[in-house]
This record gives sequence, C-alpha cells and structure tokens, in this order.
Amino acid sequence: MSRFWSAVTHQLTPYVPGEQPQHQRLIKLNTNESPFDPAPGVMQAIAETPAELLRRYPDPESVVLRSAIAERMGLAVDQVFVGNGSDEVLGHIFQGLLNHSLPLLLPEISYSFYPVWASLYGIDIEPLALAEDFSINVEDYARPNGGIILPNPNAPTGILLPLADIRRLLDMNPDSVVVIDEAYIDFGGQSAAALVPEYDNLLVVHTLSKSRSLAGLRVGYALGQAPLIDGLNRVKNSFNSYPLDVLAQRGALASIEDEAWFQQCCEQVIANREMLRGQLQERGFEVLPSSANFLFVRHPERSALTIFNGLREQGVIVRHFNTPPIDQFLRISIGSHEDCLALLEALDSL
Amino acid sequence: MSRFWSAVTHQLTPYVPGEQPQHQRLIKLNTNESPFDPAPGVMQAIAETPAELLRRYPDPESVVLRSAIAERMGLAVDQVFVGNGSDEVLGHIFQGLLNHSLPLLLPEISYSFYPVWASLYGIDIEPLALAEDFSINVEDYARPNGGIILPNPNAPTGILLPLADIRRLLDMNPDSVVVIDEAYIDFGGQSAAALVPEYDNLLVVHTLSKSRSLAGLRVGYALGQAPLIDGLNRVKNSFNSYPLDVLAQRGALASIEDEAWFQQCCEQVIANREMLRGQLQERGFEVLPSSANFLFVRHPERSALTIFNGLREQGVIVRHFNTPPIDQFLRISIGSHEDCLALLEALDSL
Repeated sequence: MSRFWSAVTHQLTPYVPGEQPQHQRLIKLNTNESPFDPAPGVMQAIAETPAELLRRYPDPESVVLRSAIAERMGLAVDQVFVGNGSDEVLGHIFQGLLNHSLPLLLPEISYSFYPVWASLYGIDIEPLALAEDFSINVEDYARPNGGIILPNPNAPTGILLPLADIRRLLDMNPDSVVVIDEAYIDFGGQSAAALVPEYDNLLVVHTLSKSRSLAGLRVGYALGQAPLIDGLNRVKNSFNSYPLDVLAQRGALASIEDEAWFQQCCEQVIANREMLRGQLQERGFEVLPSSANFLFVRHPERSALTIFNGLREQGVIVRHFNTPPIDQFLRISIGSHEDCLALLEALDSL
Repeated sequence: MSRFWSAVTHQLTPYVPGEQPQHQRLIKLNTNESPFDPAPGVMQAIAETPAELLRRYPDPESVVLRSAIAERMGLAVDQVFVGNGSDEVLGHIFQGLLNHSLPLLLPEISYSFYPVWASLYGIDIEPLALAEDFSINVEDYARPNGGIILPNPNAPTGILLPLADIRRLLDMNPDSVVVIDEAYIDFGGQSAAALVPEYDNLLVVHTLSKSRSLAGLRVGYALGQAPLIDGLNRVKNSFNSYPLDVLAQRGALASIEDEAWFQQCCEQVIANREMLRGQLQERGFEVLPSSANFLFVRHPERSALTIFNGLREQGVIVRHFNTPPIDQFLRISIGSHEDCLALLEALDSL
C-alpha cells in the first residue's frame, strides 16, 4: 500500500500464473506448455539474427509476421493484430473493445485472467454458470450485454463448443463484440477464424505458446474484420508502439511457416492425451471431455489437494484451482509420453 | 470508427513513432538508435538459448535480470521493475502511479508519448512551457499536482537538468510521484538513481534501446523504493504476467554484465556528437546544448522542413516535429563517424 498509488492500483487483485520453477528438475504439467521443441527453423531464425537488427527498432507493425499469419488463416493483413503474448492482446481487447455500459458476459469458470482485466479497466462483468456437465449453454448469452468473451475449448475444463454454437452466439448478439479465445483450438477444435469474413462482431484470439511450443517467446494474435483490428491498433499505439521485439517477430514467422512440424506436434499431443485419459479413467478418475492439451480430472474419493501435494512431493507439478465448484479438480497438462508415464507412476505410488 | 469501440478508443490520438524503413539502404538518424553493435555477449546469449527455454514460460518476475540491474545500480532487487521497453514501463507508471485528482505536470516540450498515455488512462495534464532557452525551470513545478514526469536530458531538446535541480524538485513535491525518464542519461548526465534510497517519491526510468544498442530487444526498467515498484507490479500482473520473453531477459542480462563495452560505446557517441556539433555550428546552425545521443538544431535562414526533405532525398533521415515552437528544429541522432560525415556532406550539397 502506498499513498502514491492510483485509485485503480489499490483495487486490483492481480492474476497469479502457474508456478515457474527456475532451478529444480521437475515434471512440469501445470501451465500447458508443449513437451516438444519449437520448429527447427525458429531456433535458426533467432540464432542468425544480425546484430544490426538488435540495435534498430523493430518493425512496429510486424508486417511480415502479420502477412504470414493472414495467409495461413485465409485472411487479409489488416485483419490480423499481433501482441506480446495473447495476454497482451486480450488486455488491449478488454480496454479497446469490451468497455461499454452494459456488462461483459463470460463463463463463471473460464480463464481466471478475464475478471482481472475487467477490474483493471473498470468493466462490469456478469459471469454465467456452466451447465451441470461443465459445458457452456450459448442460450444463456442471449441477454443484454456490452460484449462476450469465452475460451474455446474452455479452460480449465477443456470442453469444446462446436462451431455451430459459436455461429448461434454471433447471430444472437449482432451488436456486441464476441471474443473467442482459442488458445487450445489446435488440439481438436475447428477455429472460428473461418467465420471472420461473415461476422463484423467476431474476434478470434490465438497464441503461439501452446501448439507452437513458444511460451518463452511471447507471441499471440487476434483475427477480426478491419474496424475491430483498427480499434486494437489505436490502443496499442497509445500504449507501446513496439510490442514485439525483432527476435519474437522472426521466431514466430519461422514457426508459422513450418506447417508440417506444427501438425505433427499437435497430433502427438492428442495421442498422448487420449492415452492418458484412458489410464486415468482406469484408475477411477472422472475425466472431462477435453479438446485441449490438458485434462481436467477429479477422483470421486480422493481429495484434489491431497493428490496435488502428493504429486508435488514426487516432483510432478499439476494445477489446482482452489475455488468451488472446481476445487476437487486437477488440471493436468499433456506432456511427452515419458511425462505421462511418470505422472501415472507417481499417482500409483500415492 | 466502429460502434464496437470502447469510448476511450474513439478519443485516442495514438503516438506516431519515427519512420522505420524496412528495405531501403538509408542513413537513419531519426530514432536515436545506437550506431554500434550490442555487447558481443548479447548475441551469444541469444544464439545459445536452448529450445527448452523457448517452449517453457519465461520467469514472470525476471529475477536474474532484475538482480543484475539492482547490483549495477547499487539498489535492491525489489527496487527494480522491468518491462517490454521503457514505453511499457512508462505506460504502467501512468496507469498505476500518476492517475490522481490533481493534474500531472510535464514540460510542454518533452516526449510526445506522455500526453498519449494520459489520454489512454484519463489523466488530466498541465503542460508547462520551457524557458526561452528551452531549459526546464524547476520552480514552475511548485504548484499543486498529482504527479510530475520529465525526461532528463529532455527530449527532443537534449538539455540536461543538473542533479541538484532534480533534488529540489523532489523536495518541493514530497506528496507526488516524480518520474525522471532517463532514456538518454548515459551520454553525459548523472543519474537520479543515486537519490532512490533518499526519496520515497522518486521513480527513475531507463531503457536499453539507446546506450546499450538494443532497441530491437525491447527492454526498459524503473528504479524506485519498494512501495512504488509494488504498485507497478500490481498493474503488470493485472495486464500481462510475462512481459519479457526469455531471449530479451537473457540478452539484456548479457548487456548489463558488459560494463566496458557499454562505456566505450557511450564515449564514442559523445565524441561523435561533439565533432558534429562543431561542424554544424561552423555551417551556421544553432545547436542546443545536448547531453543526449542527438542534437536539436535550427538554421536562422533555412526552413527545417526544406532541409528535412532535402536530406531525405539524399537518403539521410532525421526527425522533424511539425509543432510550434519547435517546428524550425531538426533532431539529428548521433550515428557512426561515417554517418556524421555523410550527413554533413548531404547538408553541404543542399
């Protein structure tokens, strides 16, 4: 506390990211990182960056990277906005597009950073409960609102909303921006990016942190029609002209250009997920249907916190959210085949 | 324009950074970049980054980098805040520490991003005119205020305020945060960082973009007592947990660790500046007394815009701010010795 803080600074309850142990050798299944290396071209593009590019300012508009993303997604370059991780992109979306007089609708159980951004920018939110089976019922989003945001697949449940439901959500809310946060879409979902040309109220957010193994590089992007992207650019250019350093721009470009590596990593994660799902179910766990690179699981008899602590003692970290109604669940990131086996072994020894 | 924009998005007049030509071969003296390569260890640290660090999230607290900065500045690690360029750091300062009921004081001629951040966060500002000789008179800052921000040396004038004046400013304003933006301090000034242990209302901002030749890496930091840094962390952790990617953290660390390279680059820039100052004065230019890596100059008879355009045609870019009372000035970044000679040659041929 300090008398020098702005009023908003006092009111904030900052987001707490998953633990990032820097030194210990742990099997880290708590922040949905990829167990596979980034595409080889990424390392090469970074290592070969000339010193001259480091001493110069980077392209403030990231035109080359945005063009590559646009081409891959079948969109135009002015329909792509990039930022320092999808978290920065989402922050700008909250400030620039979701601050209206009516409340913002979002699932009560979803990315726990959403309410933090709302608080940072003074946006009223109306969290809506999930169904009994933890799915999202889009009919609930037919009420007056100043915007809608949801992850698809949802986090931390992993449950996918079909594209037909996204379309219904958009049709029901022609006067609201609908943000579909697709951090995990590459592990089995169909992207709503295909709907961008049809809907002027749709914004789709992607990250390179999960399916492209680049959590350490901090690159995310948003896709939408030009007026929405324009709005984000106004905010970005009033906050930080150069959000992506030259290494992030070059590395991200190399990743986008290697489609085969990307597909192969996603397929392997999906295969590991399905193996782990079966093994956990055999051990009596309830496993929600996941289309993400994690499983959200609970055991009918064993306490989540006890399992969490037991795994931690054996050097396996998973994520536990200590808030009802999900406090008996654990979120387990899909690691390599060996990571998955180590997790099962640790579970069996508890 | 879009009906989907938040109210603030409509009101913004975004900052316009200096031109960053991506393809042409130009002598670029318009954005105060360094003409010298970053320390060799920077390139090495980046090139040797293991793939595993790219697929993992980076340390959200940048502890290793902050410790190195703290050690070099004679401060504690909880007195250091790092961000994605000093622009991001300044953005968080405006939002987290400078938004109070009284207006923020700043020099009328200073970094033109300041009013943009004020507008983004709804902060009233009271710009104060410079003296006739373009210096800052600290007595003007003895009026009621909700905070004070100024660059030292000032930009784009290059004029340095002595440390004794900074001390007076702090003494006169014990209840306001006083932000000294020292982007150019390494080219001849004495940093106010030495006053941090004495003043709980002081925040000093540095960047690695100029004197450390790392504009392409996007790293800046703030120094202040722990309660101020805490306030910034609250904002940062409510906006983006991971502002610095792993390459930026590693590269910046290597730069901070090479004191000899840093000193040598600064000395060479100062030598080139003094050479260029003499040569411009011989050609009839008025040159403001600069302690920065640029000169702010005007010619008593020749129009700034005409000179600017003439230089541009010959492949030399400088910066022109088309706003009175500085519209007859040009800001010329200090390049390599060859760059300076090329500029003079281009001037002579106009």
